[in-house]
Amino acid sequence: MTERDWRPRYIQVAEDLRDQILRGELPPGSAMLSETDLSERYDLSRTSVRNAIKQLKDWGLVRSKQGQGTYVRAPRQRVERRHTERYQWEKDRARLGEPERGETGATEFDTGLDLPDLEFRAKYTIVEADDNLAGIFGVPAGTALLKREYWTSTRSEDSPLSLVRSYLLRDIVAANPDLMDEAKEPWPGGTQNQLYTLGIELETIVDRLTARPPLPEEADVLDIEVGVSVLVLHKTSIDTQGRVVEFSEVILPGDRTEIVHVTTLERWA
Amino acid sequence: MTERDWRPRYIQVAEDLRDQILRGELPPGSAMLSETDLSERYDLSRTSVRNAIKQLKDWGLVRSKQGQGTYVRAPRQRVERRHTERYQWEKDRARLGEPERGETGATEFDTGLDLPDLEFRAKYTIVEADDNLAGIFGVPAGTALLKREYWTSTRSEDSPLSLVRSYLLRDIVAANPDLMDEAKEPWPGGTQNQLYTLGIELETIVDRLTARPPLPEEADVLDIEVGVSVLVLHKTSIDTQGRVVEFSEVILPGDRTEIVHVTTLERWA
Repeated sequence: MTERDWRPRYIQVAEDLRDQILRGELPPGSAMLSETDLSERYDLSRTSVRNAIKQLKDWGLVRSKQGQGTYVRAPRQRVERRHTERYQWEKDRARLGEPERGETGATEFDTGLDLPDLEFRAKYTIVEADDNLAGIFGVPAGTALLKREYWTSTRSEDSPLSLVRSYLLRDIVAANPDLMDEAKEPWPGGTQNQLYTLGIELETIVDRLTARPPLPEEADVLDIEVGVSVLVLHKTSIDTQGRVVEFSEVILPGDRTEIVHVTTLERWA
Repeated sequence: MTERDWRPRYIQVAEDLRDQILRGELPPGSAMLSETDLSERYDLSRTSVRNAIKQLKDWGLVRSKQGQGTYVRAPRQRVERRHTERYQWEKDRARLGEPERGETGATEFDTGLDLPDLEFRAKYTIVEADDNLAGIFGVPAGTALLKREYWTSTRSEDSPLSLVRSYLLRDIVAANPDLMDEAKEPWPGGTQNQLYTLGIELETIVDRLTARPPLPEEADVLDIEVGVSVLVLHKTSIDTQGRVVEFSEVILPGDRTEIVHVTTLERWA
C-alpha cells in the first residue's frame, strides 16, 4: 500500500487481500486469518477489518460459513459470450435438417463450452402480458403469452451461467403444438428454427444491455453474493414484416460473464 | 404485495416503495416517511425498515441527507450508447478535413446528446506499463505509455456520464507532439483521426464488457451509490498490421447507461 493513498484504510486492506487471492498466495479453499489476526497484522480496528471482509465478499472472492470463518472462494469459470455473432449463425442454421441443427446448440456457440459439459432446464407457462410486455409486442395488456424460462449450468458447477425468460405470443406459437411443450427442449436449432416452423423469419435483433445489483432471488439462483452485479440483456427479435415476435430477458452473473463484440472495420485502401 | 411472496419482508416493502417512486406517487425531491411512520404503516421492525431504505439507496432511488431524512432522487438522464456503430462512423470521418470532423464528436454520436449539452475534461500523463498493460500491447513491463483520462458530463448534471482511461505507446505517439498535449482535447475526429496523423489505420476493435460494483473512488466521481453497478468496457484497437495501438477502459454508471446493439440479419429470400 502506498502512503499517499487517500482512500479508507479498509479498502486498501481489502485490495491487498484481493491481490493475495488473485496472485494465488491465498489459494481457493484456504481460510482467511481471523478478524483478530487481521486487525493486528494491518493495525486496523475490528470494524474496519469487518468492512474489508465485507468488501471481499461483495467482490465474490471470499465466503463466510456459519461458525467456520471465512474462506477463499474457488474462482468461477469465466464465460465469454458472443451474442451478436451468434444471431446470424443461428439464422444460417434455422433451415437445416434436424441432425445438423442438433450438432451444436446456441449456448455452446455463445460460450465455447461443449454440450456434454452443459445442463439445461426449461419451464413453460402461459402468462398474461403486463403493461410493459404489452407495449413491447404492441398488443393489449392481458394478451396470452408463452413464457419460457431457461437455466443453463455447467456440470462442474451447480449455479447457472444464465437465467433466461423468453416471451412469445401464444396465439402465434399455438400453430405448432410442439412449440408449447417444454419436454421438446433443448430444441435443435433454437428459437430461430422454432419460429421458422411457424413461417417466421427474423430480420432485426435489438440488444439492450444494462447492469444492476441482483434481486435477492437472482442472487440466490445464480449463487452470487448480493454485492456481485448482474448484466441484464433485453433482446427484442423483429421479423421481416417488422413485428416483434420474441422478447427475452437474460440475467448474467457479473463475476463470470464477459460479453465480447468484435467490430471489423472497412479498409481504406 | 401478494401473500405468497416468500422473500424477506423488507424486500417486499422496498419494492412497494420503488413502485410508488417509479409510478410518480412519490415524486423526485419528496421526503420519504420517517422510519417510525414506515414501521407503522408496514407493520415492520425498525431494522427491517432501515434495510428497505438501504435497498432503495442501493437502487439509486433515494438519498439520505445528514440530519434531513431521506429524499426521492431525481431520475438521472438515461443514456443509450451505440459503441459498435460508432467505430465505423469514426473511421469514415478520420480522413476528413478539420471543419467536418469538428462538427460532431464521438460522444454525441454515442449518446445522441448535443455538443452544447456536454462538458469534457481531459488529463494526460506518462506512465509505465504494468504487467497487464504490457501483456495487452505485447511490450516489456515498464514501457512508457501515454495515459489519457477523460470525463464527460452533461451541463445539467454534475456527475460524469463516463470515466475513460486510454493508453497509447508513447514512442509511437511522440511523432506528433500535438497528440501529447491535453490542451488539444476535445480532438476533432477523436482517436481514429489522431492515429491517422501517425499513419495508423484501425482494422479491428474488440470490446469486452463486464459488470461489477464500483470501486469507492468510482462511486464518488460518478456520484452513484456503492450499490449501483458499473459497466466496464475494455476496448482494444488493432491496426491493419495486427498491432494493438490503443487500449481503453470505460467505466459507465449502471443506473443510467444502456448499451444498445442492433443486429441486421441477412434475408433468406
